[in-house]
Amino acid sequence: MTRLALYPGTFDPITYGHLDILERARHLFDAVEVTVAVNARKQTLFTIEERCALVEASVAHLDGVTVAPFEGLLVDRARARGAVALVRGLRQVSDFDYEFRMAFANRRLAPEIETVFFMTSEEHAFVAASIVREIHRWGGDVAPFVPPPVVDALRQRRPQ
Amino acid sequence: MTRLALYPGTFDPITYGHLDILERARHLFDAVEVTVAVNARKQTLFTIEERCALVEASVAHLDGVTVAPFEGLLVDRARARGAVALVRGLRQVSDFDYEFRMAFANRRLAPEIETVFFMTSEEHAFVAASIVREIHRWGGDVAPFVPPPVVDALRQRRPQ
Amino acid sequence: MTRLALYPGTFDPITYGHLDILERARHLFDAVEVTVAVNARKQTLFTIEERCALVEASVAHLDGVTVAPFEGLLVDRARARGAVALVRGLRQVSDFDYEFRMAFANRRLAPEIETVFFMTSEEHAFVAASIVREIHRWGGDVAPFVPPPVVDALRQRRPQ
Amino acid sequence: MTRLALYPGTFDPITYGHLDILERARHLFDAVEVTVAVNARKQTLFTIEERCALVEASVAHLDGVTVAPFEGLLVDRARARGAVALVRGLRQVSDFDYEFRMAFANRRLAPEIETVFFMTSEEHAFVAASIVREIHRWGGDVAPFVPPPVVDALRQRRPQ
Amino acid sequence: MTRLALYPGTFDPITYGHLDILERARHLFDAVEVTVAVNARKQTLFTIEERCALVEASVAHLDGVTVAPFEGLLVDRARARGAVALVRGLRQVSDFDYEFRMAFANRRLAPEIETVFFMTSEEHAFVAASIVREIHRWGGDVAPFVPPPVVDALRQRRPQ
Amino acid sequence: MTRLALYPGTFDPITYGHLDILERARHLFDAVEVTVAVNARKQTLFTIEERCALVEASVAHLDGVTVAPFEGLLVDRARARGAVALVRGLRQVSDFDYEFRMAFANRRLAPEIETVFFMTSEEHAFVAASIVREIHRWGGDVAPFVPPPVVDALRQRRPQ
Repeated sequence: MTRLALYPGTFDPITYGHLDILERARHLFDAVEVTVAVNARKQTLFTIEERCALVEASVAHLDGVTVAPFEGLLVDRARARGAVALVRGLRQVSDFDYEFRMAFANRRLAPEIETVFFMTSEEHAFVAASIVREIHRWGGDVAPFVPPPVVDALRQRRPQ
Repeated sequence: MTRLALYPGTFDPITYGHLDILERARHLFDAVEVTVAVNARKQTLFTIEERCALVEASVAHLDGVTVAPFEGLLVDRARARGAVALVRGLRQVSDFDYEFRMAFANRRLAPEIETVFFMTSEEHAFVAASIVREIHRWGGDVAPFVPPPVVDALRQRRPQ
Repeated sequence: MTRLALYPGTFDPITYGHLDILERARHLFDAVEVTVAVNARKQTLFTIEERCALVEASVAHLDGVTVAPFEGLLVDRARARGAVALVRGLRQVSDFDYEFRMAFANRRLAPEIETVFFMTSEEHAFVAASIVREIHRWGGDVAPFVPPPVVDALRQRRPQ
Repeated sequence: MTRLALYPGTFDPITYGHLDILERARHLFDAVEVTVAVNARKQTLFTIEERCALVEASVAHLDGVTVAPFEGLLVDRARARGAVALVRGLRQVSDFDYEFRMAFANRRLAPEIETVFFMTSEEHAFVAASIVREIHRWGGDVAPFVPPPVVDALRQRRPQ
Repeated sequence: MTRLALYPGTFDPITYGHLDILERARHLFDAVEVTVAVNARKQTLFTIEERCALVEASVAHLDGVTVAPFEGLLVDRARARGAVALVRGLRQVSDFDYEFRMAFANRRLAPEIETVFFMTSEEHAFVAASIVREIHRWGGDVAPFVPPPVVDALRQRRPQ
Repeated sequence: MTRLALYPGTFDPITYGHLDILERARHLFDAVEVTVAVNARKQTLFTIEERCALVEASVAHLDGVTVAPFEGLLVDRARARGAVALVRGLRQVSDFDYEFRMAFANRRLAPEIETVFFMTSEEHAFVAASIVREIHRWGGDVAPFVPPPVVDALRQRRPQ
């Protein structure tokens, strides 16, 4: 049996923190799908196609990792794909409450799918996509926070 | 003397978590008014009239509970109604800071009105109206989270 | 019907923070019993008799407040006394988890007794009996933190 | 390849909260060892032999779960057993900091072993072995919190 | 050598909590610049010119304090001004995670500039500019929360 | 005027986390005294003389840093030495409440002395002396957590 897990998020853009969680999850599951939320109602810096492409370019070195855009209820996607788990990264206490709230709601809707939490490494514990966007906006150097394909993509856009 | 408490909120829509707090508060006060914030500047799923009607339908089994829309400073409402207390539910740590900040501001404005906190039961500790709206949006089943009148009201609306 | 609440604690010694909560609780209940835990297994600075006497001396100005030593399961005491509620003060986030854990356990054991939380005033939000004992130990001035009877009692003891 | 995880703790005694985590972990790993800390320097209610026996009696219905006493550095045990992960339950924010501190130390000592966190179910989120011992001590009913073998074991001891 | 620190924020409007931090910072640094974020994308109650003017009027009694509007990356400003530190106030746990995330990002971008945190006094620990705006909006009295120049400025505007 | 700050703690033993805070504090103050608490009532791994000696050996490369044992009320020491500030490191949320409680008590006792908080670097954010002692106890490698003089001192002691 292949154990598949979904790693859901907005990934606007993918950061080293996300990559770190993804690599950890890959050790424990046979396959991981990065499930990129379309988020049509929230304005994103990158389009859904760009966000997926940046994740793909950033995970090229990882076996058994796929990327897919998704719109809808996460547990529906998990069931459709036969996933056994949802993967989430915990960085700080402020993540805790939100993550638990979502995880409990998902458990009520799909008790057979487990949510498992991984710790981000210390180095990346304080990286957040929102801060990356802010630094980029003012022309700061984002290389310490995001993988090379994202650095390139940001370079090609003028800060807004 | 009748001890009246206000239970303020947006109730967009009322959840089992809200109902749980309301029933607890009712044990300790002679009467409780559910004070529904108009929130004209924030976009809500239900109108103020709908939100009040859904609270009313959901509390029909409770004696001594009334419902009223309100716009303005909460302590002004409390004074006008002769309330001795404001009731708040605490679910998680993330509620804590916001609730305390509001409670201290209210105390400065109206020292004679006490804010009291009740614990939501475990079962409902992670239910939030925002998550109910999200589940509804994607066609998920909201029945575990909200009382029957809200289930019906959501069914009659197409997810947006 | 007289609504009685218990306000349990070790009170080693009673502080202005405790007094503040007690006065708030007294506004919402007809009577409050300060239930002083014997805590035979934990070493206290004051004996159970001294702790009760210091509470009594400090609440002399408050109507409808009684003091009693107690050993056992708090919900048993609450039932024996016909109390409708347990009163707790919340000061900081670190109190939160412990208080909730106790409150949920008590609710399982005695669902008819509600635990209600009051906010300490800003002025006393950071006072803790353990810090009072530490300051006293090194000869510091405890008058900003504890009522006069406790100041006197501490003065009569040499710091250990 | 058999994926083994360790679930370490003191288990003094095992609670429904522990069992809940164990069952969740068992879904994601081929085998789970409950690693019971000897804790020679901390006074426990049950001896290490009793604690192991109570875990064994409580997990009899679970396939692929073993129990072992252990004294030493957890990562040494994990390496000796070829475990790929350490399993921890997260219940509340107060667990968070301690758990992360331990997990980071373990990661520095053994980077190849991942710590994964599972959420306790709402029902058991506030159960703690320390509260079970306190309730037992005063003759309260512990049956809502611990599995039948522990209820029996506690019944045979007089509260201390 | 003159040790300069920046105290950045939106100051919409400046509160007694801000003033308290500013006075504390002034004791430890030779000069403090209040760096007012333009925040062109966020709607503010007061314009950047008004916010700067209100800070200036409120700090007139303090030596060695200057005020400047700023748009961009904070560490760039700090370097341009030769500042040795960024000053931040910590009030509550909810501030903690956000502040740390920003501080770590700033440290990566400019390791030579230290972020230092001061505690707001108890009295002002729960004052927030967002609550001041809310109270003002409904015609409540803001005098306990903001200095006289801000009280005047708010009086001249009709609540929106 | 020489600005002196005290950096108080038990330092049982000094870790890289402590050193990190100390170096940051040294940038902002002209001199820093590491004030090592005697803690006669708490059992420590190292004696007060050993703890001071290990701090001294570990800070030899730092100008303007002195070390002194101390027993008593911290603010008394600060006044006697003419210190303008107390330095504390914040690592995690669990530190927050305790640190604030102490800081507020100290402020009441000595309003002229400021408590300032520095962030530990990510790398050392999860290092705690208690975890170092635990790792040492079971023969684990402590070199990633403590400076060389402490590694040597621990090597010369048999784990207890």
